[in-house]
Amino acid sequence: MAEKRKIYKPKPISGFPEWLPEWRAVEQRWLDHIRKTFESYGFCSIETPSVEEIDVLLAKGEVDKEIYVLERLHKDDEDGKDARLALHFDQTVPMARYVAQHFNDLTFPFKRYQMQRVWRGERPQMGRMREFTQCDIDVINVDHLPIHFDAEIPAMIYDVLDGLDIGRIQLRINNRKILMGLLESMGVTDLVPVIRAIDKLEKIGEQDVLANLLELGIQDNQLEQIIELINIKVRTGEELDNCLREKNLFTHLLEGEGLTELLTNTFAEGVLELGFVLDSLSHLPKDAVVGDLSIVRGLDYYTGTVYETQLLDVPEFTGSVCSGGRYDDLAGSFINKHLPGVGISIGFSRLFDVLKQNGKLEPGPKGPADILMVLPAEDKRALAAETARKLRANGNKVEMYHAPQKVSKQLSYAEKKGIPFVWFPPFEDGKAHEVKDMNTGTQSEASPESWTAS
Amino acid sequence: MAEKRKIYKPKPISGFPEWLPEWRAVEQRWLDHIRKTFESYGFCSIETPSVEEIDVLLAKGEVDKEIYVLERLHKDDEDGKDARLALHFDQTVPMARYVAQHFNDLTFPFKRYQMQRVWRGERPQMGRMREFTQCDIDVINVDHLPIHFDAEIPAMIYDVLDGLDIGRIQLRINNRKILMGLLESMGVTDLVPVIRAIDKLEKIGEQDVLANLLELGIQDNQLEQIIELINIKVRTGEELDNCLREKNLFTHLLEGEGLTELLTNTFAEGVLELGFVLDSLSHLPKDAVVGDLSIVRGLDYYTGTVYETQLLDVPEFTGSVCSGGRYDDLAGSFINKHLPGVGISIGFSRLFDVLKQNGKLEPGPKGPADILMVLPAEDKRALAAETARKLRANGNKVEMYHAPQKVSKQLSYAEKKGIPFVWFPPFEDGKAHEVKDMNTGTQSEASPESWTAS
Repeated sequence: MAEKRKIYKPKPISGFPEWLPEWRAVEQRWLDHIRKTFESYGFCSIETPSVEEIDVLLAKGEVDKEIYVLERLHKDDEDGKDARLALHFDQTVPMARYVAQHFNDLTFPFKRYQMQRVWRGERPQMGRMREFTQCDIDVINVDHLPIHFDAEIPAMIYDVLDGLDIGRIQLRINNRKILMGLLESMGVTDLVPVIRAIDKLEKIGEQDVLANLLELGIQDNQLEQIIELINIKVRTGEELDNCLREKNLFTHLLEGEGLTELLTNTFAEGVLELGFVLDSLSHLPKDAVVGDLSIVRGLDYYTGTVYETQLLDVPEFTGSVCSGGRYDDLAGSFINKHLPGVGISIGFSRLFDVLKQNGKLEPGPKGPADILMVLPAEDKRALAAETARKLRANGNKVEMYHAPQKVSKQLSYAEKKGIPFVWFPPFEDGKAHEVKDMNTGTQSEASPESWTAS
Repeated sequence: MAEKRKIYKPKPISGFPEWLPEWRAVEQRWLDHIRKTFESYGFCSIETPSVEEIDVLLAKGEVDKEIYVLERLHKDDEDGKDARLALHFDQTVPMARYVAQHFNDLTFPFKRYQMQRVWRGERPQMGRMREFTQCDIDVINVDHLPIHFDAEIPAMIYDVLDGLDIGRIQLRINNRKILMGLLESMGVTDLVPVIRAIDKLEKIGEQDVLANLLELGIQDNQLEQIIELINIKVRTGEELDNCLREKNLFTHLLEGEGLTELLTNTFAEGVLELGFVLDSLSHLPKDAVVGDLSIVRGLDYYTGTVYETQLLDVPEFTGSVCSGGRYDDLAGSFINKHLPGVGISIGFSRLFDVLKQNGKLEPGPKGPADILMVLPAEDKRALAAETARKLRANGNKVEMYHAPQKVSKQLSYAEKKGIPFVWFPPFEDGKAHEVKDMNTGTQSEASPESWTAS
């Protein structure tokens, strides 16, 4: 330490979180659980590059997300000839591009999950996350995608979130066709601005939404109908049907030969589809699912089912943990095929970050080891190493202590690292192995050939 | 499909590989195995952001790696005030920065692994990978890091690579102190250029290395000694010692009160350390380890043990699969502490890519499901879904067929996707569940409460 060095003291970069090992352990456990649940429903993993050509990202027109473009540090005039690359801002555009590019090599319906980092080129002052992990699932099919998948996704998402031990969750489900059918029946043609206005309901409240709708040219009597519609909350398809019929709401859109015959009517189609999805979730706790007709999502590409998800026991978490819906043709900019899909995205990093910040999570251990292998003396090193190998062969995670120091020092290292067991190879020839349970303090003879920590 | 659309036909981006699901399944299995092995030795996971401030990346001076800088697509004059961010080109600089930044919150010796993507800002014409995954492990300690860890890392790397089923591997291990001690004894003071010249041995051959060394001012009689040294290949510490003494090589550097007393002599220190490391690997097959005194690595920060790893059965893979070594003070630019470490890095993506390109790997299944759940009829949907839930609760991965189509169609979907079992819920009330093994063709009664695929 004699020489004087120039120290560049590093500091966190706003919007690019990183965790200590004990928190990374929790994050990793969560990611494993999510992945396992996705796979338990038969979804396959894909990963795409972190970048796309800018032309791909902008294929559907300018996006409202901020984008990071890559520039070589030592760029020269030649660089201008290469395609410009940018970090992806979500996993939906890359997935659409992937499906189009590999169309002939995929099996449809294509059920994929994707758990990667995405980037938003926000100014640091905004305090927003600029790098975060999303966990997405989507199903894409050629020409027609059965409503089955709209029902499967919330069932899976419930399993995912329920397994994270973050309190009660509530899936809020709707079908955009219901609102779109109503608006069409009213003669409203420009649907997207109306949907976007209604999407702000939770954020700005009913009065402001009404004002916005009026500005968009919706008339008073129409407003009433819209308000009646978006205030509907039901649990089953039957409830939804009853609710509409008993209140005599929109029955002109439902009447006819019975719902199943009415699939040319957008409104009735939406009612039928939403009913199917809700009924498929009847095995979930009562509060876990609600058909909430105010949920419409802001993105313009959804055409049917839409999802949001609330944490009922974490008021600090505002907005939706995971959201998504059905779309008609996301890959249409990349391939001349009709590829409808349905998907949902868990905003993983924000969920983890908010719960962590609000003291809702317990840190994990500082390291993964189940066992610390004591090194009794330098001449027992080979024995200790061999014992560690045997224990590893049984599936144990074994850290070897690195020097023949006093046993008390080795024990206190295990304690500091939160290692639950300490293994003593025989200190003298002919003696037995012993293992100490650091939680109970008990120490007993054990065989490295058969002992397991779990 | 009536409307005419503008299609932007996507194509692969050179240097940014992506895989079909059946290859991603293999990649994921590999990554899981690597991670599991790292954890079985007690290494904890960390991840760092994909970016660092450019000042951090360049803290040790200009790097010879090409770097990607991030620019916001819609940047303005204000952006110039923010710190410039660039994608990391390895995991070593970020790890050093991480250790310095979180120094007070870490437990030392700090044993971490890190498996992330890294980026190199190469021109696309070079055909090199511009985004790839590395799997790194390092141990860092304060002031002094026991030689134990130099020995543990190759043992673990052997377990990692041996479990990938990629043929025989060979760890080539050396200790730079040996060469450095010899050079010092010769009065050579500028060591790095000499080490770099010797590092090229395998690439350019002995004659060219000799020519380069002559140019660096090494004299003929010194050259002879260097050549004798770097041609030494041994399996154990004893062999190394014998080899040096019997050949009467450099004994002036070994003489004295016995090796252990000579730790002020760099050469003898290196011989002792290399012997310790080799002897700790005596449990591995004979060919799996070689003390190869020509291995010196090109990076200037290694100060002792160095590693390379060869695939003996894959001649198409040139160079080293994973390499690393001991360093004295990587975090010195970020913190005023002495933090020696030792580590190794698996060039994961290149390994996977080369083996895949050369037909050494079998693809995995197109999806993870163990079971396809047949949907007998629309009115059996709830039963099929419930059966799927029961099977999932036993750890099975179950894909539900999405529509009540002909059984032959459902079976052929299972075949196409490589799903090994097809489950038939009772088609009529009172009948039993049955499961068909798609490999053997046998079909038998089974209970969804207890059946497992594995």
